[in-house]
Amino acid sequence: MTGKHSVFDEATAARPAGTGRYQVHPDVRFAMVVPGGSTPAAVNGGVMVATVLRAVLDTSPHPYPVATSAHFLRVPRLEPAEVEVTWLKQGGTAATARAALVQEGRPVLDVTVTTGNLPAGPAANGELSWTGEPPHLPPIEECVDLGPWRGTVGPDGTAGYAAQVDMRLDPATTGWRRGQPSGIPEMRGYFALRDEREPDAYLLALAVDALPPVVFGLGAAGWAPTVELTWHMRAVPAGGPLRVASRCRHVSGGWFDEESEVWDAAGRLVAQSRQIARVGRRARG
Amino acid sequence: MTGKHSVFDEATAARPAGTGRYQVHPDVRFAMVVPGGSTPAAVNGGVMVATVLRAVLDTSPHPYPVATSAHFLRVPRLEPAEVEVTWLKQGGTAATARAALVQEGRPVLDVTVTTGNLPAGPAANGELSWTGEPPHLPPIEECVDLGPWRGTVGPDGTAGYAAQVDMRLDPATTGWRRGQPSGIPEMRGYFALRDEREPDAYLLALAVDALPPVVFGLGAAGWAPTVELTWHMRAVPAGGPLRVASRCRHVSGGWFDEESEVWDAAGRLVAQSRQIARVGRRARG
Repeated sequence: MTGKHSVFDEATAARPAGTGRYQVHPDVRFAMVVPGGSTPAAVNGGVMVATVLRAVLDTSPHPYPVATSAHFLRVPRLEPAEVEVTWLKQGGTAATARAALVQEGRPVLDVTVTTGNLPAGPAANGELSWTGEPPHLPPIEECVDLGPWRGTVGPDGTAGYAAQVDMRLDPATTGWRRGQPSGIPEMRGYFALRDEREPDAYLLALAVDALPPVVFGLGAAGWAPTVELTWHMRAVPAGGPLRVASRCRHVSGGWFDEESEVWDAAGRLVAQSRQIARVGRRARG
Repeated sequence: MTGKHSVFDEATAARPAGTGRYQVHPDVRFAMVVPGGSTPAAVNGGVMVATVLRAVLDTSPHPYPVATSAHFLRVPRLEPAEVEVTWLKQGGTAATARAALVQEGRPVLDVTVTTGNLPAGPAANGELSWTGEPPHLPPIEECVDLGPWRGTVGPDGTAGYAAQVDMRLDPATTGWRRGQPSGIPEMRGYFALRDEREPDAYLLALAVDALPPVVFGLGAAGWAPTVELTWHMRAVPAGGPLRVASRCRHVSGGWFDEESEVWDAAGRLVAQSRQIARVGRRARG
């Protein structure tokens, strides 16, 4: 199917509303914590970033978001919001814009985006080209269909984000589901939308923040709010499921980092990210 | 010595000049390409970020720059500039500011900073704490004193940045100095300032961008301009030389990523970064 009518495209739509202004609407269908619990709803951070990117790319002189830095200031309400885009520079190789998602006059998400061109195929002759080792994943049929997991299902049984995504995780990284965390803060798996929309820049913005928090592997539980996330698009993705591998390097003082790589079905590294987030409440000592 | 009179502190000084405004001056003593060559002078990106951080931390409610995202728009001139700081949110756990380094009315460097608190010692009882493997470095006496290298010395013999820093590189990552690049885009070594100023948040901002570009290991040469760099401060560093390890995951389309980790002399991970940069001219095919 084309992407234009997928739930993801509806949820991330940005409608022009005057020069540099766009109307958006944080969507309950991608809520990480669904309404009705003790905490307010929170929409997946990658979905929020994808929404802002739609507004930025609408007037970008270059087609791809090469570098996107997002600082998360407040939890968005599931109500209309506005994205304001300001271009700081439009150069021949790169262009940079600031964009703010604003709700009730207050910034919710502050983003800086540098756009540019990216390769869609093999390297040109004589061009410097190099890639590190891809992540090692078992075949998809040996992976665990994650389905809705704790924190993503409300008291009435409604699932938000988890109902939209098709995640098959390496069983080595899913011990936390049975109360047996591996002791290693990592997650690996295959990622797609359930409606089989093909990957593009917007879906990559979600993919880098798609897997359960790496700290689940250390016994942490609950929502782990992203404070800042920067991601780089490295190539135009081929169709098919994405492979996502997330790791962590350091947890202390209530902060943890999570680094993700996204590889496409053709075996190319298409996106990289690092976020810093807060550790949720701890399940066991 | 205290840091207050070091060349680094002079070069990164930000003098208050009205509410949210600071006077700064990109300093030839940290130039990567010194004046007189065919290209204009360019100051080390980490030094520029440290300068902006001084302005931001001047009015921050929290002491440390937990997440700093910097988009480099133009090459700064070695002339007076201004930093403009705007706070977007000041919360109990984190505060976020936008800061722009402006020269002749045009943004040169656009930065978003989230500040917070960070641990200065061992983890508190019951706090979730975890760290990955540190980089493997030979003893410092087996490392190569880098000294000034090509690109950092002007036609008149003046060295900028390279004259300020004391870098001892793992010999496995220095083959490019004799025209024999290792074929692996990585750099590892010990880093300090020559005047022995102790590490703090500002010096970490430099350390994450301190080593020669990782693509030298692939035979690239020349200045590799940073387009975007995000770094995270993870702990308050102990005194003594820092260990810095940089790697790359993907080079294509003229773009490369460079990820650095900085460990302090007490063996703690104190900073992480990733930047996306442009490949300089290639030395050999």
